Amino acid sequence: MGQTVIGVLHPGEMGSVVAARAKEAGNRVLWTSEGRREETRRRAEAAGLEDAGSLGDLAAASDVILSVCPPEAALDQARAVAATGFDRVYVDGNAVSPGTSRKIAEVIEGAGATFVDGGIIGPPPRKAGTTRLYASGPGASQVKALFGDSALSVIVLDAPAGAASAVKMAYASWTKGTSALILSVRALAAIEGVEDALLAEWQISQPQLPKRAEDAAAGSAPKAWRFVGEMEEIAATFAAAGLPDGFHLAAAEVWRRLSSYKDVERPSVADVLEVLARTRIG
Amino acid sequence: MGQTVIGVLHPGEMGSVVAARAKEAGNRVLWTSEGRREETRRRAEAAGLEDAGSLGDLAAASDVILSVCPPEAALDQARAVAATGFDRVYVDGNAVSPGTSRKIAEVIEGAGATFVDGGIIGPPPRKAGTTRLYASGPGASQVKALFGDSALSVIVLDAPAGAASAVKMAYASWTKGTSALILSVRALAAIEGVEDALLAEWQISQPQLPKRAEDAAAGSAPKAWRFVGEMEEIAATFAAAGLPDGFHLAAAEVWRRLSSYKDVERPSVADVLEVLARTRIG
Repeated sequence: MGQTVIGVLHPGEMGSVVAARAKEAGNRVLWTSEGRREETRRRAEAAGLEDAGSLGDLAAASDVILSVCPPEAALDQARAVAATGFDRVYVDGNAVSPGTSRKIAEVIEGAGATFVDGGIIGPPPRKAGTTRLYASGPGASQVKALFGDSALSVIVLDAPAGAASAVKMAYASWTKGTSALILSVRALAAIEGVEDALLAEWQISQPQLPKRAEDAAAGSAPKAWRFVGEMEEIAATFAAAGLPDGFHLAAAEVWRRLSSYKDVERPSVADVLEVLARTRIG
Repeated sequence: MGQTVIGVLHPGEMGSVVAARAKEAGNRVLWTSEGRREETRRRAEAAGLEDAGSLGDLAAASDVILSVCPPEAALDQARAVAATGFDRVYVDGNAVSPGTSRKIAEVIEGAGATFVDGGIIGPPPRKAGTTRLYASGPGASQVKALFGDSALSVIVLDAPAGAASAVKMAYASWTKGTSALILSVRALAAIEGVEDALLAEWQISQPQLPKRAEDAAAGSAPKAWRFVGEMEEIAATFAAAGLPDGFHLAAAEVWRRLSSYKDVERPSVADVLEVLARTRIG
């Protein structure tokens, strides 16, 4: 068997690092410059990926296509690939609801390809042990071999498509939901003029919370723009399960208000709270 | 100066222990048996409180009235006291929004009494260091003396009425909001058939969460019935501040579904998740 060819759509902050791990594991890894920004080109070149040219060229050359994109683009991405006639293995690695994942599966299987449901938990995998790609559905076992002993661990679930997405949704519903909540709590205290009292109480009885709020500001606000769609997918997941969707519709609103922090390096909590308190959207 | 007489409305799980601390600090402490349940009588007697008879009798005899009741009853409680013509010091120690607190202040001040806004953080104060009564508004400094060196610490905020309630709302918005969320996350994983995968992932990257979910089930489900009104007060507090109220409207729904656990001792997480998943209310 020759070298496996993997097409990565697209080498963003996560996708470029995942692609680099696939390359290290011995695969040939392609990307497509068609319609992409200069920043994506820079990331792809840094990861040593080959530009296949158009999406059609990438699809024609790839054994496996791995989609890593904002959740709101995942279904359109699958449709574009299906339109090329791609009929091998398509891995959706995006933060989408099991319902969206099943829609993507229909599109992909309708084109004659094998669909793998995936969900990535952890930061871009630069060192071992930080990050896992969950995979489920009929083609899931084929994904494990693609990453060998690289820093991206693949966990194959013995479960249908949708399960890997469900793990991702449940996981992120806590981590990103609570980050949105803690910033809202701090904003409330600021608006009500009781920040000092709340922080003093936290120091007594919840000593981990002051740092947690600072981390949410510094670490999450710069990614807020792409958390909005993820929170909406999580809300849809809760609603489909008959659980309240309000936590994550509220979290989506918080991240929407902070979306102007895209690419700002480690904003301060004071700055983020001010924007959260004064921005009214929708 | 003679002994201060404090009327406590009512000696529930929190109120009876607060009343016992006031008594230890040297005050005479009254309650009223009028319209109360047998359980309340038992608690009042255990705390050594004197039954003043009717609410009117209690109000006539008290220098200070301290209201500790479910938040949805706080305003009616104040109205009933105002109707007796009580004109001394009224401390609202309930988990209400600053807006509700201001409504209570109007009622109390309309009757010619002094209003103190209060908020209790922590469990019923049985030992020192666990529990604080925040107080704000013109009469707040008078509250500190009532509890002396007892296990209930009083923290007087140099701020108007509403501030103590704001501290309580902000604090509980995290603690009780995240307890509702973590149970929802576990319920989602159960419904989607990915509980084992989620718990395994948590063991790797969020090792504190499995116990946190168990504590929320065992510790919070039995109090769920009285968290509903508190979550609604918190949601109103967020909305009034221009922040998303969805987190706590969702949390209210979670606690509403679990309200049948009243007085059940330490239910298991599996049992609570099943009720949360299958109960549909409103």
